[in-house]
Amino acid sequence: MNILRIAVISYHTCPLSDEKNADFGGMNTYVLELSKALAEKGYIIDIFAKATDKNSPAVIEVSLNLKVYHLQAEDISEFSNNLYEIIKKEKISYDLISAHYYLSGLVGLKLKEKINIPLFVTFHTLALMKNLVIRSQDEKENLERIKSEILLTKKADKIIATSESDLAYIHTLYSCPLERTTLLSPGVNLKLFKPIDKLTAKKFIKANPSHKIILFVGRMDPLKGIDVLLYTIKILIQKHPKLAFCLWVVGGKKIADKKELQHLEEIRKALGITSYVKFVNNKTQEELLYYYNSAEIVLMPSQYESFGMAALEAMACAVPAIITDVTGIAGLLNRKHQSLLTSASNPIRLAQKINNLLTNTKEHKKMSQEVFKKVQDLSWENTALKFIQILRR
Amino acid sequence: MNILRIAVISYHTCPLSDEKNADFGGMNTYVLELSKALAEKGYIIDIFAKATDKNSPAVIEVSLNLKVYHLQAEDISEFSNNLYEIIKKEKISYDLISAHYYLSGLVGLKLKEKINIPLFVTFHTLALMKNLVIRSQDEKENLERIKSEILLTKKADKIIATSESDLAYIHTLYSCPLERTTLLSPGVNLKLFKPIDKLTAKKFIKANPSHKIILFVGRMDPLKGIDVLLYTIKILIQKHPKLAFCLWVVGGKKIADKKELQHLEEIRKALGITSYVKFVNNKTQEELLYYYNSAEIVLMPSQYESFGMAALEAMACAVPAIITDVTGIAGLLNRKHQSLLTSASNPIRLAQKINNLLTNTKEHKKMSQEVFKKVQDLSWENTALKFIQILRR
Repeated sequence: MNILRIAVISYHTCPLSDEKNADFGGMNTYVLELSKALAEKGYIIDIFAKATDKNSPAVIEVSLNLKVYHLQAEDISEFSNNLYEIIKKEKISYDLISAHYYLSGLVGLKLKEKINIPLFVTFHTLALMKNLVIRSQDEKENLERIKSEILLTKKADKIIATSESDLAYIHTLYSCPLERTTLLSPGVNLKLFKPIDKLTAKKFIKANPSHKIILFVGRMDPLKGIDVLLYTIKILIQKHPKLAFCLWVVGGKKIADKKELQHLEEIRKALGITSYVKFVNNKTQEELLYYYNSAEIVLMPSQYESFGMAALEAMACAVPAIITDVTGIAGLLNRKHQSLLTSASNPIRLAQKINNLLTNTKEHKKMSQEVFKKVQDLSWENTALKFIQILRR
Repeated sequence: MNILRIAVISYHTCPLSDEKNADFGGMNTYVLELSKALAEKGYIIDIFAKATDKNSPAVIEVSLNLKVYHLQAEDISEFSNNLYEIIKKEKISYDLISAHYYLSGLVGLKLKEKINIPLFVTFHTLALMKNLVIRSQDEKENLERIKSEILLTKKADKIIATSESDLAYIHTLYSCPLERTTLLSPGVNLKLFKPIDKLTAKKFIKANPSHKIILFVGRMDPLKGIDVLLYTIKILIQKHPKLAFCLWVVGGKKIADKKELQHLEEIRKALGITSYVKFVNNKTQEELLYYYNSAEIVLMPSQYESFGMAALEAMACAVPAIITDVTGIAGLLNRKHQSLLTSASNPIRLAQKINNLLTNTKEHKKMSQEVFKKVQDLSWENTALKFIQILRR
């Protein structure tokens, strides 16, 4: 095997950053887990991230073949220069630049101009798609981001999409030729996320053992459709008064989530469903294992979701996830999974789907087994193997 | 038959107002056409609307049994008082108050307190549902409207929903008991809207006879999902470069629509689809006959639509309408019509549906016949007969 050395750029956020940090999300998991898996296959991976403060260690050795560099920099230009200085000084010879999010893509482009090696860019979310579904002007992605994404689809050697739908959008909306795009769906940590005894899990999260829990995990962001979920709860209560359940919303309580959380609190109050809905602080991956395993169903009612890792993690715990057809993960499901697919902004349909899975024990069991089986191929090791295939093409 | 005299309240807008007026929409058609049909059945209908200016005629005799009163008033309170004065002065004895939109509902409630007869309220759109899908804070319906709607669901004798989905929302979100709710879907003017020769229609609207037209008709409102439609066009062009078509967007160019139209122009430019998309001023019902008949497909990609009259009008012209499952009219369709149903915010799925109908001649013909057959029962006369059944219950 040719040992390949890869410079991974994560300008926006350090993938080692604490999960309670505002910028943590599926992208950090993707960068770190893919890097770990590639390092285990013998690839030498150096991740370059912007230092969050002056005291950040300059280099962290995460594991064999895997290092994270923290670069002190004010902007993309300074970051790129500092990165190039390190490469020159330490005489490192990279074979590939792998950039995550458009900002890192811009860094990668500057680096490519200097060292002339292939650049792979993974956007994770697309500004054009985000703008399509935003609910207020202050969420609107600026024209600079859109222009940067279009520039990168022209200049990068490969644009990696994390889902079939994003692949289609990159091809169609951004007019990126198919031959320069490829799909690399995220994996899931199958060693961490697996089925455990429900009562044990419920004890850990201090839930009433007799309550059926339906669960949301994610940022408090209007795009996530948590408001639709609250309307759905009201419909469930009115239409099926005998259904004993509680919605737990995990995430939020962070500064960036404050405005949306306040909006959700207002809806919860206006609909009179406070006793049915519990807001919980965000949790670490290790804690989430217990939350997923406590739940009957996980919900992802997003307006747009580049992929949707939480649904994948739930499925690894053999918990069915009901998702909208505008999430990337929907591309993994097929005809067998129709009871798990719903459409955005439709609380009536979502309520029907939830009620069906909560009351139809046979269907619930079938879907639990089905989704568990589905994710067994989706280890990060397999994702790394697919990445290696892309490299060798 | 007991001759019934009905006071119809349309505070918000006069149903006789010109269709090019900013406030014209499905609601005006509903009020006027239902009133006409009831008048033809022998009911005496007096519509009370707010005068738009000082020179509005005080009373207009529309047809036998049907009058429209224009009331000079600054607010609901003054309107209610003036209405009561007319009733007292002219010694009219009404059997029912039928109020349209929540503002008229509030007028109706004041009147009911004075003359103690049943009050029927039709909301047409629901503030709670509208707030669920708004894209910016300045579109947000105020708390006063929500409170008024909740008050009316408590105090009115009957809340009339215009679709199955709104019926469900009134029951669940507003906690209105089922026995005080009922469904009365709008009808369609089958004398006006009917199939005519496509080439004649295209000549009238000055369209290229060889272009396949796909059509949107409605206000320029973020809720209508016209932006999703523009993304869809880009996907169609990229994925099916041989498909010769043009999207016509009818509506807008009014002051209220200006902001959204500007937003849509930006998207049209950013996506480079200007030659595929034509914006047309709004049209009268008579003109619309030609637009519908010129089209291969009518699109209604709304985020929420209380009913969706344009789709019904298209169907009466034997033109298949692709609609989202969050529109009221979706409740009229069934398993046979799956090729016409899509989900909100999903341009990929919408593009597939459009391409399928444009290229699959057999399916297009089948759906054209199917939708035409479907609407033949939905004359306003039949809607009036259903209303009379509700009265007699």
